[in-house]
Amino acid sequence: MSDAWLDEIKWTAEGLVPVIAQETGTGKVLMFAWMNRDALRLTQQNGHMVYWSRSRGKLWHKGEESGNQQVVKQLRLDCDNDVILAEVEQKGGIACHTGRHNCFFQRLEGGRWVTVEPVIKDPKEIYR
Amino acid sequence: MSDAWLDEIKWTAEGLVPVIAQETGTGKVLMFAWMNRDALRLTQQNGHMVYWSRSRGKLWHKGEESGNQQVVKQLRLDCDNDVILAEVEQKGGIACHTGRHNCFFQRLEGGRWVTVEPVIKDPKEIYR
Repeated sequence: MSDAWLDEIKWTAEGLVPVIAQETGTGKVLMFAWMNRDALRLTQQNGHMVYWSRSRGKLWHKGEESGNQQVVKQLRLDCDNDVILAEVEQKGGIACHTGRHNCFFQRLEGGRWVTVEPVIKDPKEIYR
Repeated sequence: MSDAWLDEIKWTAEGLVPVIAQETGTGKVLMFAWMNRDALRLTQQNGHMVYWSRSRGKLWHKGEESGNQQVVKQLRLDCDNDVILAEVEQKGGIACHTGRHNCFFQRLEGGRWVTVEPVIKDPKEIYR
């Protein structure tokens, strides 16, 4: 497969593109992260999400430690060619490193961010 | 209301936070944009989405030209306090400046980005 589809993406100055992972079926937004060109190519080739970890400065095969891989169902690109929306199947039902289903578990209520989603599995049990 | 909830957000070096707008009911991801502190405060105060336009360098009251406002249903914050997920009601059923329901209308199919969503209203009719 040619890389023309990768060339169409408007990468940031750092060579990244923001990525939204949305769960197939439920439609819940699981997480937000970044990919570089290699990460997106590998994601397409391997069929599971590979991000670029800005904090660690390296490729991050989602689930490499936790086993909670994200299987790619489809990849979408926005009108400006600078944001990716990925529909994924979340293995293990846990996307967040806190052990919750997804990362958006704080809701603004009465001027405070309130945690409204339960921890499904203790992170100490996930990352041994 | 105190601004403490705004202080909890980890703004980028440019003072921004990425924002995902998701449609209430359908769960569809409508668009991705950025807010600064003023935009997020106004969004909370007024109950409709106000973004920061990086290209125009000013506040962008979504729907100010098109009428297609986004009414805020709830605001969520992620585990790292650096991404906002907004559940919104999309007035007019059109979030994208191309006249489509949402911005993620290109799907990767056989190594090409293919437009898979229809234009609901000609942009020339939206932005007069």
